[in-house]
Amino acid sequence: MSPNPDKPAYSPAIQSLLPMLYVAWADRVLSPTEAGLLRLKLKELDFLSENDTKILASWTDPGNPPDRELFQHWRILIHRALQKSSVEERKTLVDIGLEMASAYGRSDSGQWTGQTRTRNALEELEKGLEAIDIKTYQSLFPHEKEEPGQGKIPQHGLTKILDDDYHELRNRMRILLSDPAFEYQNFRSKETYRDQVLNWCTLLAKQGLGALSYPEFAGGKNDMGQYAAVFEMLGYFDLSLTVKFGVQFGLFGGSIMWLGTEKHHKKYLEDAGSLKLPGCFAMTETGHGSNVRGLETTATYDAKTKELVIHSPHIKAGKEYIGNALQGRMATVFAQLIVDEKNRGVHAILVPMRDENYKLLPGIRVEDNGYKMGLNGVDNGRIWFDQVRVPVENLLNRFGDIDQQGKYSSPIENPSRRFFTMLGTLVGGRVCVPRAGLSAAKSGLTIAIRYALKRRQFGADYASAETLILDYPSHQRRLMPLLAKAYALDFGLTWLTKRYLNRSEEDIREIETIAAGMKSYATWFTTDCLQECREACGGKGYLWENRFAALKNDTDIFTTFEGDNTVLMQLVAKGLLSAFRQEFHEEGMIGVLRYLGKRVSTNISERNPIIIRNTDPDHLRDSDFHLSAFRYREERLLYSVSQRLRTKIKSGVKAYEAALQCQHHLLQLAEAHVERLVLEAFLKGVKSSSDPKLEHMLKKLCNLYALHTIETHKGWYLEANYIESNKSKAIRTMVTQLCGEVRQDARELVDAFAIPEKLLGAKIIRKE
Amino acid sequence: MSPNPDKPAYSPAIQSLLPMLYVAWADRVLSPTEAGLLRLKLKELDFLSENDTKILASWTDPGNPPDRELFQHWRILIHRALQKSSVEERKTLVDIGLEMASAYGRSDSGQWTGQTRTRNALEELEKGLEAIDIKTYQSLFPHEKEEPGQGKIPQHGLTKILDDDYHELRNRMRILLSDPAFEYQNFRSKETYRDQVLNWCTLLAKQGLGALSYPEFAGGKNDMGQYAAVFEMLGYFDLSLTVKFGVQFGLFGGSIMWLGTEKHHKKYLEDAGSLKLPGCFAMTETGHGSNVRGLETTATYDAKTKELVIHSPHIKAGKEYIGNALQGRMATVFAQLIVDEKNRGVHAILVPMRDENYKLLPGIRVEDNGYKMGLNGVDNGRIWFDQVRVPVENLLNRFGDIDQQGKYSSPIENPSRRFFTMLGTLVGGRVCVPRAGLSAAKSGLTIAIRYALKRRQFGADYASAETLILDYPSHQRRLMPLLAKAYALDFGLTWLTKRYLNRSEEDIREIETIAAGMKSYATWFTTDCLQECREACGGKGYLWENRFAALKNDTDIFTTFEGDNTVLMQLVAKGLLSAFRQEFHEEGMIGVLRYLGKRVSTNISERNPIIIRNTDPDHLRDSDFHLSAFRYREERLLYSVSQRLRTKIKSGVKAYEAALQCQHHLLQLAEAHVERLVLEAFLKGVKSSSDPKLEHMLKKLCNLYALHTIETHKGWYLEANYIESNKSKAIRTMVTQLCGEVRQDARELVDAFAIPEKLLGAKIIRKE
Repeated sequence: MSPNPDKPAYSPAIQSLLPMLYVAWADRVLSPTEAGLLRLKLKELDFLSENDTKILASWTDPGNPPDRELFQHWRILIHRALQKSSVEERKTLVDIGLEMASAYGRSDSGQWTGQTRTRNALEELEKGLEAIDIKTYQSLFPHEKEEPGQGKIPQHGLTKILDDDYHELRNRMRILLSDPAFEYQNFRSKETYRDQVLNWCTLLAKQGLGALSYPEFAGGKNDMGQYAAVFEMLGYFDLSLTVKFGVQFGLFGGSIMWLGTEKHHKKYLEDAGSLKLPGCFAMTETGHGSNVRGLETTATYDAKTKELVIHSPHIKAGKEYIGNALQGRMATVFAQLIVDEKNRGVHAILVPMRDENYKLLPGIRVEDNGYKMGLNGVDNGRIWFDQVRVPVENLLNRFGDIDQQGKYSSPIENPSRRFFTMLGTLVGGRVCVPRAGLSAAKSGLTIAIRYALKRRQFGADYASAETLILDYPSHQRRLMPLLAKAYALDFGLTWLTKRYLNRSEEDIREIETIAAGMKSYATWFTTDCLQECREACGGKGYLWENRFAALKNDTDIFTTFEGDNTVLMQLVAKGLLSAFRQEFHEEGMIGVLRYLGKRVSTNISERNPIIIRNTDPDHLRDSDFHLSAFRYREERLLYSVSQRLRTKIKSGVKAYEAALQCQHHLLQLAEAHVERLVLEAFLKGVKSSSDPKLEHMLKKLCNLYALHTIETHKGWYLEANYIESNKSKAIRTMVTQLCGEVRQDARELVDAFAIPEKLLGAKIIRKE
Repeated sequence: MSPNPDKPAYSPAIQSLLPMLYVAWADRVLSPTEAGLLRLKLKELDFLSENDTKILASWTDPGNPPDRELFQHWRILIHRALQKSSVEERKTLVDIGLEMASAYGRSDSGQWTGQTRTRNALEELEKGLEAIDIKTYQSLFPHEKEEPGQGKIPQHGLTKILDDDYHELRNRMRILLSDPAFEYQNFRSKETYRDQVLNWCTLLAKQGLGALSYPEFAGGKNDMGQYAAVFEMLGYFDLSLTVKFGVQFGLFGGSIMWLGTEKHHKKYLEDAGSLKLPGCFAMTETGHGSNVRGLETTATYDAKTKELVIHSPHIKAGKEYIGNALQGRMATVFAQLIVDEKNRGVHAILVPMRDENYKLLPGIRVEDNGYKMGLNGVDNGRIWFDQVRVPVENLLNRFGDIDQQGKYSSPIENPSRRFFTMLGTLVGGRVCVPRAGLSAAKSGLTIAIRYALKRRQFGADYASAETLILDYPSHQRRLMPLLAKAYALDFGLTWLTKRYLNRSEEDIREIETIAAGMKSYATWFTTDCLQECREACGGKGYLWENRFAALKNDTDIFTTFEGDNTVLMQLVAKGLLSAFRQEFHEEGMIGVLRYLGKRVSTNISERNPIIIRNTDPDHLRDSDFHLSAFRYREERLLYSVSQRLRTKIKSGVKAYEAALQCQHHLLQLAEAHVERLVLEAFLKGVKSSSDPKLEHMLKKLCNLYALHTIETHKGWYLEANYIESNKSKAIRTMVTQLCGEVRQDARELVDAFAIPEKLLGAKIIRKE
């Protein structure tokens, strides 16, 4: 297609449609409703040639927005047509289109006769698009200087900071999810709900969102960062959809991508990404949830037929809680791979479950998990395999293969390392889940804070107005630290995602540790935060119409899935200890001494009798003080628990038993580690703003996060003599004061989350 | 009726039925299924005379169990018949009955001819009773020495202690709720659920349980203690039923009882207690939840017609969240009473809402509150009144009346005192609600602990068995302190109930304060406890079939209703302060000095440098230490916040503003107060057992509650220099150790709650 506007290659028919296409795409999103309407109406236009229809089909595919150049070309053509009319003349899109068709159409493509008989058809189309009421005629050239893609989404300087590298994609999601196709509904039947969620998921796949992290040949963009951003944005809408999306594209598709090899990618990824092939991620078993290595399903290699025989040896070895179990056609099954009568450890195998008519294949039994506390739009079920045979090609063989001679081989010799490497590739889920959980928490905070800025109760006396509930210090104490922590986690999780995207062989284990810790810390926060927000809205918070029922119930399982938080936190602590031991091992005694020296010097500077009593407000608001306190806590816990373990082991306690005895201590260490990382990320985030006003707002929030965390651990700090009584009291006073200061910015801070009104969907904050 | 067994006044027909009646009543409960079956089958027995039928009707009324004497009489008659047969001869109830009928019937009441033609009818009845499978033939004379009423309910020494004065009534409830009529069901439609709950509630009323707290003329027993025990037991079953029960009998009936006078009692109480008159308690308004005094509904006296005109002046003055709104026929409406153009403050008026066909009356508008997070079996709604007229007699006039001349009068002059006195009479709800919440928490604890005693995960190595999850110290740390606190609250709430039952004019305000505090402390515990228990059961805890979904969702609102917890805790603190000020006022400066003197001496003994460092295990397990620590915290907080307030007010800050500024401090004080009361009650409970083994178990639990609470507040204690670092660390170690010790008793301790298996209703703990 020629980009030269003077010689348009378009037929008059297409020209007549350009203004409408331009408007529909103006926000870079062709929402399901727009796409549906366009396709329906275009079919009715009988003046389109076969070639026109082909071109228009490619321009109305939600997954393929017109590129910048093409869009620019449309813009120039339309602008030229507009220049002919005066500003007062308020033309419709149809007027402009018909003008364009006749002006240019005639000279190049011969006489175009469609004008009169099709005005009606076009007008109907325009009316339909306007009725969606997302974009209007106004958006044609709203602000000449603005880039397309901004639409009506509220813009706050902080939003861009929070949105980070994915501002445009997030805005696209904001627009997309505001489409009428995505409407909250209180589904009472799980079957209806599941059908709707599957339908929503298909709409997202059509937008090209399912395959984002896959290679381009599979319809993707090879961009896990975009995938993560989309997943997070889905967390502002229905969380069943979020989880279903994650199961299909992240877990099922992801397992093919990360555990399979090229043959699997070519064969399955495109269908996984388009949802043509719905699939399960069948890891957890009834008997083994957290302890994946203890799974009991077997995949036995039959050398005669070159098949793998998948089998559940007993009822508790059935796969448990598997998403997509009722609607999936294939499953990635994790099983003990037995080759030549030797167990090679857990591997993943693609096992067809249902035929094209969704009939279960022989040997496979599925049972519905039934109703759950929430997420009833996700079809979780149990799956058992009774001697199910699949060709050996179905083994996802990146980390373990069986050759033509029936010999097992693996690029990683050590079975334990192999197992952890395999699991490690799947860490993406742990990076994504806390982000969706945080979105839910932000929705809750926005609703609770906006309600508290509307609702009044009690007053000084009957003459004066009742007090706004956000003006109660107790209410500020409830909500402001949560708001600060939501921001802290936003920066922390963005930082984690970036590290994950830029991971290398060297730091992948470290990133896994951090992901495990952040996942736990963030999802516990989500649970606490939503509970507090619900209570802060009183009885109103209990009504379904105000969203907390869904938000709380749907996210409650986040502390358990993708790894039980308590188990994960122990992994974190053990990861830190082994890194610590490693350091000692490499540097020998000198390392220990250096470490102790550092510790002593910290002690001297930190536990300086002036500093431990310093209650100067500037000091209390000083980020260096906060960071030192966080680091001190982490290091001291690391040192003390490692000493305790050493002493125990030396005295003859077995390592496993010793770790058990120190469990509580280990969990504290893990928390201190995550908190230090989150604070560091927040501090970097504060400095990232070039606007001094925003920096100031963020700084206050960061102070609140840091000091409130120190206050929460004041028992520990006092015990460690890191602060003295008077300082502890001064910190409490300062936290209260900061809550009051942050309250002044509260509305701006929640608005900066830029959650579309429709997605908040709570009646209590609607204008009356 | 003659109690002389030699001359039975019963007809042979009745004699033939005695064994079955005896068995049905053996546990002192005629469950809905038994009663239904008996009534159905008795109708089919055509040999009964009119008089027989009358007698049998009175003996099959679940609300009127046969008294001990009558029951004894049956027993003697049956025993005599049995003596004739040998032990080996295993007779059926029908055999025995027929024998009795022929042996005695013949001589006194002439030839009885029913024998042959009715054996079949009687046998059907016996089969039906056996099918219920609650009681069998065995129960006829299970253990000669045992009192009737024990049945199959598990008996642990602790159960009797926990059941306190209501052991028999609680056992009756355990049996009753195990009847097939009470079956969990995952209702998806609120309408179906509400109908079921109403039906259940009617069954309870038929058992005479609704009217327990009403006078005898209204079918009651004048026993609020029994009512509270029943309410608590209902908390082990469906909480929608619990709440509906509370709304009807406690709030609606209670408002008539406590705010009305004899004319209202005679006219309405019986129908309220039998559920013939379902009613609402319409206090809360959309605009005014916690601030009851600010209600805007008006009740204006019209002197001409001697009517009260009930009116909602605007949409937000509508009654909000009113239980029974959709099914109620009458409402107790709280409104500003306006007589002679003067507002006399909030009063309660009985307003008919629906006619006998449940059609809404003119001027009344009701709107369904729709689905809620939980309690969807309760029909909450909004109600508006548009100039609705009721006769002045409908004013519940105990605390304010309008005489024939249209003059308002009240036994309490001061409007503020009048308002608080009125509200004070309704404090029963705050005594009951936390008890039902605690029942839910106990159900959750029982499920989580029994699951943790079954579930294994991970292990030292692959050769050894996986570890039982309750053997993980982290799991013990999660669940054991909650178990200890559940026991603590049980004793605390029993103590509160007793004080409430024995209240006098003098201490009613104090009891209100305690009830407000206990309600908050206990319901927050319920929320925390169920969250932790759900997480401790992992993904299994998320499934509907394992109860946590219902338990969590249904109790979530407990922290809000019957008063928002945060608001209530401030009331507690203010109550303490005014008592404190009172003391000062009465004793003047001497009082202050005396108080300070006491404080100083506490300081000396408590903050003795040896004691604050004492880490001796005996000292740490010493209840005197615990109690001193709790008391010290409460007293010091009371003193310090009162000093702060005084200083602020002296410097010109208004009282309202000063209280706002100290809100956080006040909330801490309230918590410390409640904790001290709970510990005192627990300590008394420990001593109440005469069995040294039980006393030892309870003592450990009490130690855990006390030390864990001190550990939770260790920041405060360290800040106050009440303990030093080393002691704080020793407390942590001791808490961990106590968790391990209590873990050994864990199964016994949850079994002692004696929650029937059927009511636990969680699949994960069923035998496989």
